[in-house]
Amino acid sequence: MGLQLLEDQAESARALLAPEVLSYYDAGAGDEVTRVESEPAWAGFRLRPRVLRDVETVSTATTAAGVALAHPVGVAPMAFHALADRDGEVATAQGAGRSGALLVLSTRSSRSLEDVAAAASGPWWFQVYVMKDRRLTESLVRRAAAAGAGALVLTGDTPYVGLKRRVSGTRLAVPDDHFLVNLAAHAVPGQSITAQRAAAEQDPAVDLSTIRWLAEVSGLPVLVKGVLRGDDAVACLEAGASGVVVSNHGGRQLDRALPSALALAEVAGAVAGRGAVLVDGGLRSGTDVLVALALGADAVLLGRPVLWALASGGADGVAACVGAVRSHLEHVMALAGACRLDQLGPDLVVAPRAPG
Amino acid sequence: MGLQLLEDQAESARALLAPEVLSYYDAGAGDEVTRVESEPAWAGFRLRPRVLRDVETVSTATTAAGVALAHPVGVAPMAFHALADRDGEVATAQGAGRSGALLVLSTRSSRSLEDVAAAASGPWWFQVYVMKDRRLTESLVRRAAAAGAGALVLTGDTPYVGLKRRVSGTRLAVPDDHFLVNLAAHAVPGQSITAQRAAAEQDPAVDLSTIRWLAEVSGLPVLVKGVLRGDDAVACLEAGASGVVVSNHGGRQLDRALPSALALAEVAGAVAGRGAVLVDGGLRSGTDVLVALALGADAVLLGRPVLWALASGGADGVAACVGAVRSHLEHVMALAGACRLDQLGPDLVVAPRAPG
Amino acid sequence: MGLQLLEDQAESARALLAPEVLSYYDAGAGDEVTRVESEPAWAGFRLRPRVLRDVETVSTATTAAGVALAHPVGVAPMAFHALADRDGEVATAQGAGRSGALLVLSTRSSRSLEDVAAAASGPWWFQVYVMKDRRLTESLVRRAAAAGAGALVLTGDTPYVGLKRRVSGTRLAVPDDHFLVNLAAHAVPGQSITAQRAAAEQDPAVDLSTIRWLAEVSGLPVLVKGVLRGDDAVACLEAGASGVVVSNHGGRQLDRALPSALALAEVAGAVAGRGAVLVDGGLRSGTDVLVALALGADAVLLGRPVLWALASGGADGVAACVGAVRSHLEHVMALAGACRLDQLGPDLVVAPRAPG
Amino acid sequence: MGLQLLEDQAESARALLAPEVLSYYDAGAGDEVTRVESEPAWAGFRLRPRVLRDVETVSTATTAAGVALAHPVGVAPMAFHALADRDGEVATAQGAGRSGALLVLSTRSSRSLEDVAAAASGPWWFQVYVMKDRRLTESLVRRAAAAGAGALVLTGDTPYVGLKRRVSGTRLAVPDDHFLVNLAAHAVPGQSITAQRAAAEQDPAVDLSTIRWLAEVSGLPVLVKGVLRGDDAVACLEAGASGVVVSNHGGRQLDRALPSALALAEVAGAVAGRGAVLVDGGLRSGTDVLVALALGADAVLLGRPVLWALASGGADGVAACVGAVRSHLEHVMALAGACRLDQLGPDLVVAPRAPG
Repeated sequence: MGLQLLEDQAESARALLAPEVLSYYDAGAGDEVTRVESEPAWAGFRLRPRVLRDVETVSTATTAAGVALAHPVGVAPMAFHALADRDGEVATAQGAGRSGALLVLSTRSSRSLEDVAAAASGPWWFQVYVMKDRRLTESLVRRAAAAGAGALVLTGDTPYVGLKRRVSGTRLAVPDDHFLVNLAAHAVPGQSITAQRAAAEQDPAVDLSTIRWLAEVSGLPVLVKGVLRGDDAVACLEAGASGVVVSNHGGRQLDRALPSALALAEVAGAVAGRGAVLVDGGLRSGTDVLVALALGADAVLLGRPVLWALASGGADGVAACVGAVRSHLEHVMALAGACRLDQLGPDLVVAPRAPG
Repeated sequence: MGLQLLEDQAESARALLAPEVLSYYDAGAGDEVTRVESEPAWAGFRLRPRVLRDVETVSTATTAAGVALAHPVGVAPMAFHALADRDGEVATAQGAGRSGALLVLSTRSSRSLEDVAAAASGPWWFQVYVMKDRRLTESLVRRAAAAGAGALVLTGDTPYVGLKRRVSGTRLAVPDDHFLVNLAAHAVPGQSITAQRAAAEQDPAVDLSTIRWLAEVSGLPVLVKGVLRGDDAVACLEAGASGVVVSNHGGRQLDRALPSALALAEVAGAVAGRGAVLVDGGLRSGTDVLVALALGADAVLLGRPVLWALASGGADGVAACVGAVRSHLEHVMALAGACRLDQLGPDLVVAPRAPG
Repeated sequence: MGLQLLEDQAESARALLAPEVLSYYDAGAGDEVTRVESEPAWAGFRLRPRVLRDVETVSTATTAAGVALAHPVGVAPMAFHALADRDGEVATAQGAGRSGALLVLSTRSSRSLEDVAAAASGPWWFQVYVMKDRRLTESLVRRAAAAGAGALVLTGDTPYVGLKRRVSGTRLAVPDDHFLVNLAAHAVPGQSITAQRAAAEQDPAVDLSTIRWLAEVSGLPVLVKGVLRGDDAVACLEAGASGVVVSNHGGRQLDRALPSALALAEVAGAVAGRGAVLVDGGLRSGTDVLVALALGADAVLLGRPVLWALASGGADGVAACVGAVRSHLEHVMALAGACRLDQLGPDLVVAPRAPG
Repeated sequence: MGLQLLEDQAESARALLAPEVLSYYDAGAGDEVTRVESEPAWAGFRLRPRVLRDVETVSTATTAAGVALAHPVGVAPMAFHALADRDGEVATAQGAGRSGALLVLSTRSSRSLEDVAAAASGPWWFQVYVMKDRRLTESLVRRAAAAGAGALVLTGDTPYVGLKRRVSGTRLAVPDDHFLVNLAAHAVPGQSITAQRAAAEQDPAVDLSTIRWLAEVSGLPVLVKGVLRGDDAVACLEAGASGVVVSNHGGRQLDRALPSALALAEVAGAVAGRGAVLVDGGLRSGTDVLVALALGADAVLLGRPVLWALASGGADGVAACVGAVRSHLEHVMALAGACRLDQLGPDLVVAPRAPG
């Protein structure tokens, strides 16, 4: 069963990775309430399956922001995959490609987006911050478009980096050329690393108008990541977004933010089909994915499980992880009496009690 | 008190049965959330008894799908009773008969349905899957009708077998002639066991139209087992079912499916007397049965407790188990101020909080 | 603080009493769910105190079923006080009198009702079952009226005695003349103890018509004890009752019955001042009493705490127990901004979540 | 992160303070239910942040009862700071001043209000009880007005002192001249300490009319502390109050009173801008403050954390404590998409389940 595999990969990664890397990947902000609640929030939903439906052939095909996908299980943007595997995001892209998964590549990748694009055999999107240096931002997203990104995913929940107790004071051994691999090409000659880092910081003054600007300079659809409210989702769409990613940044930004699982229905209801709705945060099985799709998501993104898969098995590990979740999704869809994703709706689930 | 007996029988069975048999009987699908929640879901209801009602004579008589029953406590269909007792379902049928319990015999019995029918002194129904080989299915249900089955119970929640971690990779020592005892007679001469097994697999392409087909070929009323939704129950009735069994297959199919106790009221309300409503899953005392009847069930089925009773005491154990639950039901009915089952309604209970 | 005293008395009683006596007093029916939930059900309410009210003088005076009481803290009917103190109910009555508490004397007292009446310096009521021998019942309540009982409390929740695992199979060393002290006088000459016991059993055929009959033969107001539903309370009033006692018999009858604390508001709302509303079950402090009064009770009855008080300190212990609860009630009334009981209403409390 | 600092200060204080002082500061009334629930009540709220708002500049400026404050984090009135630091409230005032915090000075300070006023570099208010000796009360509040207090905070929840088990029977080593430092000047010559203490006791006969009287004799705005109900808040405003402090006295008065966090929204809704709304009780981080402001508070007061800060670091400790909470508030405001306090409203939070 897929889930056993994910647990095995996580256990294996914990044994293989250096403690500071594990902490960097694993840590949440503040008291880690949001991080801790993410998984059980999905598990808290109960299912109302149907019986005696023809489920001989189960299809997981879907479309998100205009991209046709064999299944709705994608890879969330996360920084510095080279900490888990020497080939970094190149290996992740290979694994995603083999398993038919949408890849969302982080700006803070440890391999250049062009290298990753070359390794990708399936659809990939590019995650972006709007940096203090707007021209740097513009150049970067143009490069992503040129390299074949299908969409931009604008991270909206990080005007400042969340405070994480567990990694406070420790420093990862990330070589600077890894840290800035996607940005180094744009450095002004002679610019110090410190100045480069400052230019690459998210600009806390960005607002919703950034969405349309990004779409214009890149020519790509823009999805906003970090949305947890219906009114915010509508505001993003009205400001030009093609969709949203319901997310609390893996519990790494505002602690005590709602678990994604509990914010999704409101967001999907407000979007009402006018844009794509993706979700990440705490999804660990096909049943979790089933719940997300029933609540209105078009697709989901796996975060930490992909890092554990990468650390424990490289590209093959990533492909196995995605494949196990997809396979489990097919199984539970059949048991729930559904053979296509458009048969999944809110009537399939019973919401849990509110947290807190 | 009956309940003490059930605990004693379970403890005794745990000591007597081989570990792999125990696991086979006990295991649930996935994380076993649904299996674990089944019992406390009943226990979560609170009671609103009446005082000063004449309860000198308490009757538990009821009718389900046209069958008059001395009491509403029956035996759920479960595979391979020979793992618990050498006489298998013959012993179960004897115990059920002695205690006036409705017996629902599994297709996957370890004794032939004709042998069991011969041993049965009370009403019995026959549980059936629609197998990939429809003619095999047809022959089987005709035999059941001929042997005296009062109804068919079509299992609707098993298009594929649920994934159970605990029994994954282990193999029960069930001789093939036990495994296929009800099907062997229909084997094509020279057909391999593997081919026979394949033909006997549930067909995942079955749909609601199967209900009417089964009723026609057998001449028996058909109840659908595995129903957890009101709209599904209505769909089954409209497709020709005489009733439903609210069930999540003992937590062995779709994990995180609703506990039966929390699905029953909706189903009973939707059926609204137009068919029989039975329920299984986690019932362990007369109080649990009282709750089920108050929520609208016409009868209940005991699952694992019957296996523990069979393992610990054979036919007598089964009769003692059923008798204890029935006796406890009479006691708590009196304390609740009810002397007939038609005095039990939803006003008797206060629903628990939602799970999760 | 009063509550510390109650804890000390309970601890002391546990050290002093024989284990079988402790079990007899302490046990609940079934899985003891109702017994265990009784105390936390009161503690689950939260308070909404008022500020800046004149609470220099706090009065706890009240009236219940026409009896003026210095305070609303009374003693619940319980059997066989002689197991806790040699003087039995005589000591209890002395302690109740000293502390101004209403005493409800059990039919199953270990001292004759006339002895107890002689020892009582305050108001007392007489608890009664309707026994299989109606003339015995009639004689008994006439004696109670003659001895000065202010009212009858008809126990309505015990058509049969609840099944208690903890005391199943053990036998208290209660001499027969203690067991039947109130009934022996009515024995037919030569009647065996067994026959006397049978005649004294509660008649499970009694119904609501018994209320008016008891009132007529005794000339006393009749309250029905064991009421947990509003409609039942109304039915009792319409059948001639002067009031009800919200109670689940200390969790000793129908297990999983609602805690009194969660049934009280509905009953008080249905009674709507047309009769007295008392409540027992799990009250352990002045704050619990405050909650009960806010929810609509006219008075409360203490059960097990009085037995522990009696065992640990005799009549003085009982007086101290009642006094401590009353004193605590005055304190918390003042802190809640109330100086009279009629200032306590449902707006003072926030109900807890439902149990289960 | 600020919160780590508060934990460190608390741990340090626990190591430094005498056990009886720790107990005196820490204890709650009764079973300490209210004390224990105060902190988790704030933590139980979940947040609904906004994305892509310009939060480059975050301002925490606010106004409470006409006083402009750089931020909404103030110091609650607490008795006898000299038990934590030799300089007592003088040190607290210095720390509050350095960190821009509103100081609410207790009548039961261990340094005279004039000394504290001299040390205060920012706004301070004076907490007052209405004592049995009204002229003593009048003189005291006139002195506070003369010394520069900006408002009076009338404690309304203490007609009698709450009963605390932990400190029952122990006696703090507070010299009498500390205990009565603010009152000694008003002592009648030759009056015994016992008589002085009696005169200084809160008068349980005070009622809402006291509010206007205090405002008149002092010429200061009066806020009422201890309000937990909307109707009570309105009654206070109608009786002349300029605002209320939502508080349960740190859980030291009526046990089982609502946590402040769960009473605030109702009070703020009832006040509806017609007066100031402050809140104390269990606030331990900027996130807690964010929740309080979202629920309608104009400012918050820190209680025990200030004592731990004072004990562990004197005036600097207090300034660090306030500064950390303020800084954390700015951080979480930005992550929630708000750059001014007037952008915080109830839509930012999801309420937890009710306690109990």
